Amino acid sequence: MPLTDDQLTAIAARVPTPFFAYDQQGLRDRFHSLKRHLPEGADVYYSLKSNPCKAVVATLAAQGAGCEVCSRAELETAVTAGGNRRRIIFVGPAKSAADIGRAMDLGIKAIIAESLDELRLIAEIASARNIVQPVGLRINPEFRSAAVRIKMTGIASQFGIDEAELRPALDFAASDPHVVPVGIHVYLGSRILDEEAIFDNTRNILGLADRVAAHLGRPLSFVDVGGGFGLAYFDKERDLDPDVLGRGLADAVAGFRRKHRRTRVVIELGRYLVAEAGVMVASVRYVKHSKGRRFAICDGGSNIFAAAAGYGSAFRKNWRLRRIGTAPSQEVVPHMLTGPLCTPSDTIGDQVPLPALAAGDRICFERAGAYGPSASPTGFLSFGHPAEVMVTDQGPVLVRHADPVDREIPQQTWEPLMAQQPEKDPAHA
Amino acid sequence: MPLTDDQLTAIAARVPTPFFAYDQQGLRDRFHSLKRHLPEGADVYYSLKSNPCKAVVATLAAQGAGCEVCSRAELETAVTAGGNRRRIIFVGPAKSAADIGRAMDLGIKAIIAESLDELRLIAEIASARNIVQPVGLRINPEFRSAAVRIKMTGIASQFGIDEAELRPALDFAASDPHVVPVGIHVYLGSRILDEEAIFDNTRNILGLADRVAAHLGRPLSFVDVGGGFGLAYFDKERDLDPDVLGRGLADAVAGFRRKHRRTRVVIELGRYLVAEAGVMVASVRYVKHSKGRRFAICDGGSNIFAAAAGYGSAFRKNWRLRRIGTAPSQEVVPHMLTGPLCTPSDTIGDQVPLPALAAGDRICFERAGAYGPSASPTGFLSFGHPAEVMVTDQGPVLVRHADPVDREIPQQTWEPLMAQQPEKDPAHA
Repeated sequence: MPLTDDQLTAIAARVPTPFFAYDQQGLRDRFHSLKRHLPEGADVYYSLKSNPCKAVVATLAAQGAGCEVCSRAELETAVTAGGNRRRIIFVGPAKSAADIGRAMDLGIKAIIAESLDELRLIAEIASARNIVQPVGLRINPEFRSAAVRIKMTGIASQFGIDEAELRPALDFAASDPHVVPVGIHVYLGSRILDEEAIFDNTRNILGLADRVAAHLGRPLSFVDVGGGFGLAYFDKERDLDPDVLGRGLADAVAGFRRKHRRTRVVIELGRYLVAEAGVMVASVRYVKHSKGRRFAICDGGSNIFAAAAGYGSAFRKNWRLRRIGTAPSQEVVPHMLTGPLCTPSDTIGDQVPLPALAAGDRICFERAGAYGPSASPTGFLSFGHPAEVMVTDQGPVLVRHADPVDREIPQQTWEPLMAQQPEKDPAHA
Repeated sequence: MPLTDDQLTAIAARVPTPFFAYDQQGLRDRFHSLKRHLPEGADVYYSLKSNPCKAVVATLAAQGAGCEVCSRAELETAVTAGGNRRRIIFVGPAKSAADIGRAMDLGIKAIIAESLDELRLIAEIASARNIVQPVGLRINPEFRSAAVRIKMTGIASQFGIDEAELRPALDFAASDPHVVPVGIHVYLGSRILDEEAIFDNTRNILGLADRVAAHLGRPLSFVDVGGGFGLAYFDKERDLDPDVLGRGLADAVAGFRRKHRRTRVVIELGRYLVAEAGVMVASVRYVKHSKGRRFAICDGGSNIFAAAAGYGSAFRKNWRLRRIGTAPSQEVVPHMLTGPLCTPSDTIGDQVPLPALAAGDRICFERAGAYGPSASPTGFLSFGHPAEVMVTDQGPVLVRHADPVDREIPQQTWEPLMAQQPEKDPAHA
């Protein structure tokens, strides 16, 4: 349920633009619609990287979503947002010993080891604590995926353990007294809009899980088949069909589950869960003409929503956006939409047909709930992180203030480093 | 004077990686070396966008650099860092009325208007305060520049007033009782490494200034000729020669200054002043092999230094970097260097020849003083802004703590928006 112009206008009367707003019921509906279509035995985990706003995480966790976290800060966010610790997995290629120790303190479902060295480090830390730590192994499989926008397997990668190198890792995990292998994790890529690709991936990963379980001689507790479900951002893209998706996944999962009744299939999703329920709202500060083009300069741009400027894509495409409210005229003209930065790359709309904009008009960037400020250079030109609003059943609430920007230490209190205690990380102490 | 391995090792014993460190004397030396080569009548302004760290700004301001700011936060930074208000100019295409009012409160050298509409808004606000506001006009000239990496003029642009549309803006500025046109501003582009291109640009802009002064019938107080001086980041690039630069600029400026004795030439520089004195230091967390490649996974990557991952460039190239300290072996092997993010784009070194790295080794990214954390998605995966250290005459001091990351409002105190007073911006109230 995307937020309406009336809702956004009411918020904009209270919160200076630019801001992000999320529809809480929309988040819940999206989660439950997906869950309804998924087969028995499949769990949905929310990838915090797509939007770490605690209000978003709390909303999904309250519906029963697990949490996939990739940093200590995301781990803390998941816990303070009310995430069930038994449904938190900790992925990421650069975990420190302190990160691992904290995950053990919290008693999460599993730490996902991305290498044999990390597995050894986990075992060493668990040994020092005299515990048995549940671990998952992230695997870089031999098979590749078609129809994936960002390919992450089948090539040399910092992520996971090459399938060809898997045996020593499995043998270590099976024989070390302080770790127990409870699952595997494979992530094939992002922004997949082809249902068949998802089914292929899932079948391939479940086949791998079957071989891993056979090698270990014990059932896995879970198989994380990644996710990467996309949604349509641009022209000529179409959303995944939830009925088709549900039926195909049921087929793919059924055979595996007949043999592995107690193994849950984890689907981790970020963008798919949160993109649609969020918007970015910016105001037009000036309208001007240059060499025959009409520019609308906005108070927020690539500094808070880099995706709209095409960062991370080979070619930028125009984001879905609209002018908020009834336009004085129905006639549309092409607009260059730009943000507040002093760089030509801060173009967030290239000749977008819109009713003739004027200073003060507000623009809504749709499907902006994922990879917004957290994936953007919010400190550029010191504009800072924008405010975030959650539209709850009780109305809109401010869940994050816009940054005050200045986080530096006043010169009077600069800290001479020789007086400082080092913050030791036991990983490399 | 780049920071030495010994200096960085001493800092790393006190400050957890990743961090940025700046050499204060290096910043001073760089500024004075440039000043010595510049002709009489030329002033150097520091572009805060390249690095808004207050300690960096304060260092340059104390040497006499002016400040070029592009947001209200940068304006506040310049002032609290001790910048002389009479040497601050305020550029930027999206200034709000509140921004403009604040600049008037502070009594800065000039507000640079980027459009006729902005000029009118400035006049309106000045009229309400019954003051006469010094303004500069940013111009998008007809001439283009060769040898510029990011071209910003001669094409349709959100920046400045098209030269063809200049006359009404000049006439407005000359005739309105509440603004006085004191300068012009032209910015031709970034990362220029060709001295001749700089001289051409300077001559072209000074020619334009001459025509503007003639049209106004009064002398300008300053001509901001932009800057965009580059420095060599990559193989096959060479640094600008300061002697050649100084002589050529003296030639370009001399003719203009003979006719316009009281007009100062402002050169605004960011990268050129601060890049060399700064480094980014990260630690290797894990070393692993995948499909025949050796990966060193670091605790900082594109999340804090996006430039090293090629963000903003069409093709990424390997940044200048080194292993800190004496390597156990002189033999070098190619390494993939990656950061802590869960995306393959977090590659910060592609087959870089280095002594065989091990977990705990530290890597120094050189010439990293410009467009570091402020131009990077520091909130990605919630890793946050890294610590910053200034190496002063009294030793290294911590000038910014690493981010605590969590800036959200606890759920118990979420603020219902209906109870909030809107923060009104008089621009669009």
